[in-house]
Amino acid sequence: RMEEHENYFNREVFNRMSEKRPDRKWLEAKQSSPDTVFILFFNLNPLVSASEESNTAHPGIKLCRLDASSVNKELLQKSGTTVIFLGVEKQRSSSSSPPNEGNEPTAWFALNTDDNPMNHLQLTNPNSFFLKPPMPGLLKLSEAEAGIIAQASSVLAWHNRYSFCPTCGSNTNVEEGGYKRTCFNKDCRSRQGIHNTCYPRVDPVVIMLVIHPDGNQCLLGRKKTFPAGMFSCLAGFIEPGEAIEDAVRRETEEESGVKVGPVQYVSCQPWPMPSSLMIGCLAVAMSTDIKVDEKEIEEARWFTRQQVIDVIVKGTKPAFTMPPRQAIAHQLVKHWIGMSSNL
Amino acid sequence: RMEEHENYFNREVFNRMSEKRPDRKWLEAKQSSPDTVFILFFNLNPLVSASEESNTAHPGIKLCRLDASSVNKELLQKSGTTVIFLGVEKQRSSSSSPPNEGNEPTAWFALNTDDNPMNHLQLTNPNSFFLKPPMPGLLKLSEAEAGIIAQASSVLAWHNRYSFCPTCGSNTNVEEGGYKRTCFNKDCRSRQGIHNTCYPRVDPVVIMLVIHPDGNQCLLGRKKTFPAGMFSCLAGFIEPGEAIEDAVRRETEEESGVKVGPVQYVSCQPWPMPSSLMIGCLAVAMSTDIKVDEKEIEEARWFTRQQVIDVIVKGTKPAFTMPPRQAIAHQLVKHWIGMSSNL
Ligand SMILES: Nc1ncnc2c1ncn2[C@@H]1O[C@H](COP(=O)(O)O)[C@@H](O)[C@H]1O
Ligand SMILES: Nc1ncnc2c1ncn2[C@@H]1O[C@H](COP(=O)(O)O)[C@@H](O)[C@H]1O
Ligand SMILES: [Mg+2]
Ligand SMILES: [Mg+2]
Ligand SMILES: [Mg+2]
Ligand SMILES: [Mg+2]
Ligand SMILES: [Mg+2]
Ligand SMILES: [Mg+2]
Ligand SMILES: [Zn+2]
Ligand SMILES: [Zn+2]
Repeated sequence: RMEEHENYFNREVFNRMSEKRPDRKWLEAKQSSPDTVFILFFNLNPLVSASEESNTAHPGIKLCRLDASSVNKELLQKSGTTVIFLGVEKQRSSSSSPPNEGNEPTAWFALNTDDNPMNHLQLTNPNSFFLKPPMPGLLKLSEAEAGIIAQASSVLAWHNRYSFCPTCGSNTNVEEGGYKRTCFNKDCRSRQGIHNTCYPRVDPVVIMLVIHPDGNQCLLGRKKTFPAGMFSCLAGFIEPGEAIEDAVRRETEEESGVKVGPVQYVSCQPWPMPSSLMIGCLAVAMSTDIKVDEKEIEEARWFTRQQVIDVIVKGTKPAFTMPPRQAIAHQLVKHWIGMSSNL
Repeated sequence: RMEEHENYFNREVFNRMSEKRPDRKWLEAKQSSPDTVFILFFNLNPLVSASEESNTAHPGIKLCRLDASSVNKELLQKSGTTVIFLGVEKQRSSSSSPPNEGNEPTAWFALNTDDNPMNHLQLTNPNSFFLKPPMPGLLKLSEAEAGIIAQASSVLAWHNRYSFCPTCGSNTNVEEGGYKRTCFNKDCRSRQGIHNTCYPRVDPVVIMLVIHPDGNQCLLGRKKTFPAGMFSCLAGFIEPGEAIEDAVRRETEEESGVKVGPVQYVSCQPWPMPSSLMIGCLAVAMSTDIKVDEKEIEEARWFTRQQVIDVIVKGTKPAFTMPPRQAIAHQLVKHWIGMSSNL
């Protein structure tokens, strides 16, 4: 009953230690500690390298981990550079890094720059490159590194788009280890009381597998931008003043014309492009006629349980495709086919 | 299993008709239709009146509903005025408004102004007033009107704080019936592709009732700002790159020092101050020692099932108080005490 799904991008590798974010001295000390790890982004694209063994157990791409000595002080202080504190490792990994003096857990930072950092860096790995554009390479990380990217990419994307105060248009200053931006204008309303304008943005999205009233079919749709033959769950942004369950009903009806009754939460997934939180639900249809919203959806169809089993489990010559296992849409379908049949 | 909780602020009275938002002609026609209802805000405070019967079935305050003829064209077009389209009534209410010609459902708009609208309005109800500050008056609306306020207040609060483009600092223009703001600067990156900067913000928050490993106690805390004697569920903003369940674990440990294992979603509630989505969960504690984060929490304690029953159900001379039924914290506690005992 309380079983929890771990989706790709969900893994929390760090203790985020938010209580240390206001402590500039502590952060500065950590930034120059030899044990600290930096990950690097150039225009929001992470520095990675191909991992030696590229099979499913060892995914194809890994983050480059830099240490304080290879991150130039000049680069750290440039105006186009943003540094954020990610946290400290929850458990000391036994092999990946040597234990440090005080036996304190290793701190991690992420750095984004708009100036080619190759000019400032001494890279140990000559095969490293900036992953650009992030998809689908971003889905080739290990589970742990996907969790790190989920946090780092979304906070950095926020800095990249929210450098001006939305309340008065002034410039803002990065504070609290990268989790706050404060308006430079002393008279700005954003400096009185607490409001969301100073904090990173997370956009809640519903993503739903809608089940036919007969219990044996599910509703999948295609956006125009999908690769040919691919179908996925319907999804949409939760609007202000709306509950999760109502957003599921509204978006399903908008996109497919199908009316939905009961809705059940299954699991969620941070989606760092740029900073969504996908809230995955099962939903029961109360009607079956399909009429797609042609602005967003090219086609929506009912698929039988057997058809999705063929794609998800067997994968041999399927009549259509679905997103890969790293996408919560895939996991929702898998959850549904596992609910009432034994595979 | 698929039972759904309806919390205060959750009721969806309208079909939001998002497909009509880009249709300026349609919106303008609706704005001057005699059947249309306007609700009015002055500096984000809604115009209300005391309802005649003030008992629990008929709560104490109701929204003033204005028609197109009493909303001055001048007021509609002032620079400090924002008008948003709320939607059309889902079902024709049989009594509240006379049926209109084409039998089209009644459209609703919300208007916020920074200039005292009493100068521009002919008010039919002389006992109307602007509800200021919104709490706790906002909790005295009917369920239906609370749903309307949830939508209207949060979209209007967004306009009030986000009138400048966060990407370049330029002014922005209201579009799509009040659900989009577009940067005036033609060269701005916010005008290429789709990003969240142009859309209303919703902040997902976790709120959790943490259950003691013995199953018979729950963890409640007090913020310094709470009324004396009041305790509530712990809560906190979901951070970028974080799943709901991990946010529950992180915030509980930050605020109380208690470690949490399994987490189960129960229900959610839009909280329009300014625009949060409270995601309510039950969580099972894996440790019991309490160490509060003194910046945020004044005190946290384990309360027995009987103690919370005394407050929530009996209410006679309780040793402490809890938020009222309109708050999801109250409903989470009620859900827990209802789960395994028959009241
Ligand atoms: N926070 C947001 N970020 C990006 N697009 C949004 C957002 N909120 C609303 N939209 C709009 O929603 C469309 C996607 O539709 P949907 O995902 O079905 O809600 C986008 O093309 C935008 O027009
Ligand atoms: N979106 C947001 N809106 C308001 N405050 C935020 C937000 N995100 C983080 N915070 C910070 O979180 C504090 C409240 O703590 P909590 O609700 O426990 O996360 C506020 O005082 C702010 O410093
Ligand atoms: Mg969609
Ligand atoms: Mg939408
Ligand atoms: Mg949609
Ligand atoms: Mg917090
Ligand atoms: Mg809190
Ligand atoms: Mg907190
Ligand atoms: Zn400002
Ligand atoms: Zn701009």
